[in-house]
Amino acid sequence: MSSLNQTGLARCERLLASADSLGVSLSTIGESRIVDCGIDARGGIEAGLALAEVCLAGRGRVAVTPADDGPRVTVATDEPLAACMQSQYAGWKIAQGDFFAMGSGPMRAAAGSEAIFQEIGGIEVVDDAIGVLETSAALTESVCRSVADACGVAASQLTLLVAPTASIAGSLQVVARSVETALHKLHELGFDLGRVVSGYGSAPLAPVAANDLAGIGRTNDAVLYGGDVLLWVRGDDASLREIGPLTPSKASRDYGEPFGDVFKSYNYDFYEVDPHLFSPAVVRFCNVDTGLYLAFGELRPDILARSFSS
Amino acid sequence: MSSLNQTGLARCERLLASADSLGVSLSTIGESRIVDCGIDARGGIEAGLALAEVCLAGRGRVAVTPADDGPRVTVATDEPLAACMQSQYAGWKIAQGDFFAMGSGPMRAAAGSEAIFQEIGGIEVVDDAIGVLETSAALTESVCRSVADACGVAASQLTLLVAPTASIAGSLQVVARSVETALHKLHELGFDLGRVVSGYGSAPLAPVAANDLAGIGRTNDAVLYGGDVLLWVRGDDASLREIGPLTPSKASRDYGEPFGDVFKSYNYDFYEVDPHLFSPAVVRFCNVDTGLYLAFGELRPDILARSFSS
Amino acid sequence: MSSLNQTGLARCERLLASADSLGVSLSTIGESRIVDCGIDARGGIEAGLALAEVCLAGRGRVAVTPADDGPRVTVATDEPLAACMQSQYAGWKIAQGDFFAMGSGPMRAAAGSEAIFQEIGGIEVVDDAIGVLETSAALTESVCRSVADACGVAASQLTLLVAPTASIAGSLQVVARSVETALHKLHELGFDLGRVVSGYGSAPLAPVAANDLAGIGRTNDAVLYGGDVLLWVRGDDASLREIGPLTPSKASRDYGEPFGDVFKSYNYDFYEVDPHLFSPAVVRFCNVDTGLYLAFGELRPDILARSFSS
Repeated sequence: MSSLNQTGLARCERLLASADSLGVSLSTIGESRIVDCGIDARGGIEAGLALAEVCLAGRGRVAVTPADDGPRVTVATDEPLAACMQSQYAGWKIAQGDFFAMGSGPMRAAAGSEAIFQEIGGIEVVDDAIGVLETSAALTESVCRSVADACGVAASQLTLLVAPTASIAGSLQVVARSVETALHKLHELGFDLGRVVSGYGSAPLAPVAANDLAGIGRTNDAVLYGGDVLLWVRGDDASLREIGPLTPSKASRDYGEPFGDVFKSYNYDFYEVDPHLFSPAVVRFCNVDTGLYLAFGELRPDILARSFSS
Repeated sequence: MSSLNQTGLARCERLLASADSLGVSLSTIGESRIVDCGIDARGGIEAGLALAEVCLAGRGRVAVTPADDGPRVTVATDEPLAACMQSQYAGWKIAQGDFFAMGSGPMRAAAGSEAIFQEIGGIEVVDDAIGVLETSAALTESVCRSVADACGVAASQLTLLVAPTASIAGSLQVVARSVETALHKLHELGFDLGRVVSGYGSAPLAPVAANDLAGIGRTNDAVLYGGDVLLWVRGDDASLREIGPLTPSKASRDYGEPFGDVFKSYNYDFYEVDPHLFSPAVVRFCNVDTGLYLAFGELRPDILARSFSS
Repeated sequence: MSSLNQTGLARCERLLASADSLGVSLSTIGESRIVDCGIDARGGIEAGLALAEVCLAGRGRVAVTPADDGPRVTVATDEPLAACMQSQYAGWKIAQGDFFAMGSGPMRAAAGSEAIFQEIGGIEVVDDAIGVLETSAALTESVCRSVADACGVAASQLTLLVAPTASIAGSLQVVARSVETALHKLHELGFDLGRVVSGYGSAPLAPVAANDLAGIGRTNDAVLYGGDVLLWVRGDDASLREIGPLTPSKASRDYGEPFGDVFKSYNYDFYEVDPHLFSPAVVRFCNVDTGLYLAFGELRPDILARSFSS
């Protein structure tokens, strides 16, 4: 089977075939390829869909669909562990001097440096690596080289897609993380992610914010108060009945206010925020072994309206 | 124009190009190709979409879309008679010894053995045949050979896709039958299906059930109580006004309870169930000749909730 | 970058590859290629999607999605000015003898004869031109030649797609104009369309009407009372706060009745209808520079129900 980096790269090439038309610009920094989807480039909806699907290593489909309160972003995957946890989860902190970005996409599996890979596996040895950086900051040759080094590839074999949280493509790719957010929460709760067969989710397309900090607030709220995820799982029912009520964002002590307000109340210290807050508003389980179907949580359009209008 | 078997086969090849990634396995029994989408293979959403589109002979589009009560499956076709009645309708009973499955897809037109083909036409002479079996049972060489024989093709030129009702792909392909179910009901009512130009429908993606019998219950309920179909038709208005109120499931004496309960009340004898029950909850007609637009029936999320949680 | 006529033509070729199956017929009148999507041909949903995407010069995506009151048509574009105003807007009146049609699509940019091109630019010099005519009338060689002449191309290098308003494909392509209608209204209000980065919209798929006049009524109502558009814009907030409340159809003196009734009350004189009526029911603005998010207007399913059932 192809590696995550190969299928992610294939999805990126489809974007690049219409780069001009889709508001995306390709350049090189040092020898690495940089695909700007929203820093200087205008990006847009299609760039956001591509960005999200590259994050998923091409192992899932992302789309926009209308709803009463504005568009929603849907995601479907039949390889949830690989697509969402080995690839899409933004778990790689890339910091060097002034530069800071959260890294996601297939390159995480090539680097394999995050602790989570000890549990979920999937580390890849590849010739070409591809990843996504959620950032407004300008990349440097030195950052690219260190990412390539960590992935075990030549700098010339590294492709990085970049977009700020506060851009159309950037906010779309974040709210395409509804299934991933549910998986990550389940992982926090000690659930064996190998039990998850397929996932389908949706969340409102958060309006682009004034800056990345505000964008983090709106996009988090889209998932926390507007996300609706269905997971098909295997195994016993008892664990689902037990863990189910703990899964949606509602189970967190920090639930109930726009994320920006919560974050501010902790003086913007991420480590103070209850990690159990990060989960979709609604999580549904379908046990394909037993037929049990359970739904937990509720949508909160009232909190979303406050978040998106402030 | 290409045959239904040719366009169905082309759709299958697209699935097979990503078989590993999509949880589908290709094998041979005797000389026939078997594509497992959910018996031993894990299958999934994409396998279900492919299965549904093969059933439609590639003459329609199937998609998943979010809704308040979980995902829905949509189907659109501009060749409703060919796609739904000559191909998708599960009208071929394939029984041999212990083996039993309902057969659907283009191979039905190659076999042409069902009585309905005398009325709707469309029998094909082909070199290659393709079909879908909704079953949990293991295929045998003898079953494959008899299907190939009935289709008038060599066993080596037969492709069969298989999935149990109680699997992700299997339940998806069944609820993709909203338009077909409306057409079949209209046929029962004596409506000339040649009048139907195009069809668009949707139904909830029923949660995978514990076993195929329970799966038949849930997937039927998805259409009977959650299906919403729009048919564009030609001809006179009087017949639509007359037949319209009889068309949705609501017009049946067996309407109002989850299908599993109805079925049980008849001791699981299909022939006792009112055949007029099998129809979408809502059926809309748009007469393209006169501009008449009528909608009949209503969605019943209350009954669906009972069905999906039991 | 490719011209609008080139990318529109590429989208047309994809339709023609399945012409038979999709109910579309290709012929020539004089030397020009005519693609009938609904006059004598049956057309359908796929033909309508193709027609709509050709109108957008292939610079946007159109889809059908289910909703409570029947299917909706969505449109997404990251080149709103080019796709919607230089191409999709039906601004070219083509009249010759008895023949009359509104012309849209990329050929408008090749002709460049409408006053609006002086303001929005985008005039193209091309070898091949493609356009869409909303009409039930039979084309003549003379009409084709004069369109080709206006576009500066040989008659043999002109492709025209045709469909009546009162056809499946024709009504679909009209209601795919939700974003375009919002842009045109903003242009009327003096808003600089260069500020609009991307657009996403949806509107109900109006039932095919008895005739084109009635079809104009229903398809207009679909947008005026059922359209919901989100525009991502750049620039200052003050202008959005000022112009926003004036943008949706609700701001017009002619708002509140089905369009057919309004039109009739003016004795079918288009120039008497308030030009500010033509706008989606709901228009949302997201300022990507400031994060301001505002929504104006409201959906009116009550008026739509009257329109679609009369």
